[in-house]
Amino acid sequence: MKLSARNQLQGTIVGVQKGQTTGHVRIDIGGGVIVTASITNEAIDELALQVGDAAVAIIKASDVMVAR
Amino acid sequence: MKLSARNQLQGTIVGVQKGQTTGHVRIDIGGGVIVTASITNEAIDELALQVGDAAVAIIKASDVMVAR
Amino acid sequence: MKLSARNQLQGTIVGVQKGQTTGHVRIDIGGGVIVTASITNEAIDELALQVGDAAVAIIKASDVMVAR
Amino acid sequence: MKLSARNQLQGTIVGVQKGQTTGHVRIDIGGGVIVTASITNEAIDELALQVGDAAVAIIKASDVMVAR
Amino acid sequence: MKLSARNQLQGTIVGVQKGQTTGHVRIDIGGGVIVTASITNEAIDELALQVGDAAVAIIKASDVMVAR
Amino acid sequence: MKLSARNQLQGTIVGVQKGQTTGHVRIDIGGGVIVTASITNEAIDELALQVGDAAVAIIKASDVMVAR
Repeated sequence: MKLSARNQLQGTIVGVQKGQTTGHVRIDIGGGVIVTASITNEAIDELALQVGDAAVAIIKASDVMVAR
Repeated sequence: MKLSARNQLQGTIVGVQKGQTTGHVRIDIGGGVIVTASITNEAIDELALQVGDAAVAIIKASDVMVAR
Repeated sequence: MKLSARNQLQGTIVGVQKGQTTGHVRIDIGGGVIVTASITNEAIDELALQVGDAAVAIIKASDVMVAR
Repeated sequence: MKLSARNQLQGTIVGVQKGQTTGHVRIDIGGGVIVTASITNEAIDELALQVGDAAVAIIKASDVMVAR
Repeated sequence: MKLSARNQLQGTIVGVQKGQTTGHVRIDIGGGVIVTASITNEAIDELALQVGDAAVAIIKASDVMVAR
Repeated sequence: MKLSARNQLQGTIVGVQKGQTTGHVRIDIGGGVIVTASITNEAIDELALQVGDAAVAIIKASDVMVAR
């Protein structure tokens, strides 16, 4: 499957925290940078996301702001 | 100014392309990773974004998906 | 590749319109429903999206509102 | 009220799950397709969303990605 | 129609600029505050948005960041 | 720091509610308008957001819809 999303950052999961409906997954994309994703608990379970897994953070270009 | 956004990726601008209303800014965040932001032309002008400038890609955690 | 996005609607592309930086892709997901995606021209080219192609509209649950 | 959002998918609510601040609403839009919306508990209460209600899933075109 | 979106800011349109596929609509919500919406040209046409019209800027709570 | 986001609404925090992973912050931007932001608990803690604090609601133009 190929995705239109311009930003597909490969890394390793370093944290998975589930809430009641929404959880947070932290992905180390290298160079000391951690990306945090807020996704449904359901997705965490379905993809069986666990610390140590390889994973990709996917971000649509229209969701990226720029600061200077 | 401190921002709630969990993802603030520092880098260097490597591309600025303006369209009629919306433009694309490409930021090299290191490790061979380029992040693309789709923002208004107005913002590109106001921040005077140019290739070579230091810049930060800002992404809210709720806008990050995870793929495996 | 498995994606965390809760909404993955399968269909057929019925329209592709490129602008200067951003384009619109229309996907017929059946039952008379057309979903419109606003994505970068770059993605349209990279995925070689064309009318008649099978495609999937991907939407994160946090981007869906509810009306009544 | 008319909305600019390109995607307004009519259906029937088949699930409502509240968390502590954020809940999930599942809408059957026909053809075996369920759309999941992650919205505030407050909105679930204010709209009195319940299983069996007619509802519309509203999605902005810029929040739709395309996969192939 | 009632919408789940937490933020529905009433105002008056003070600018409409169409691009090739995406346009910008500026809404004065009072107190000297202008909100800019980036929406499809198609939506601008369909809603016949014009300077001077009353309009509402609709924003989902999960799309709002906080700065301090 | 200057941000590309077109919408930066200054106000005062009138509510902070934390959930298990995600919280809601309510900002009074004047004229009787309250903006609700759904952000991570982590961000609420890191920015030490409290009722009475001055704060800014930041919204990207591509996340604003228009209703009429």
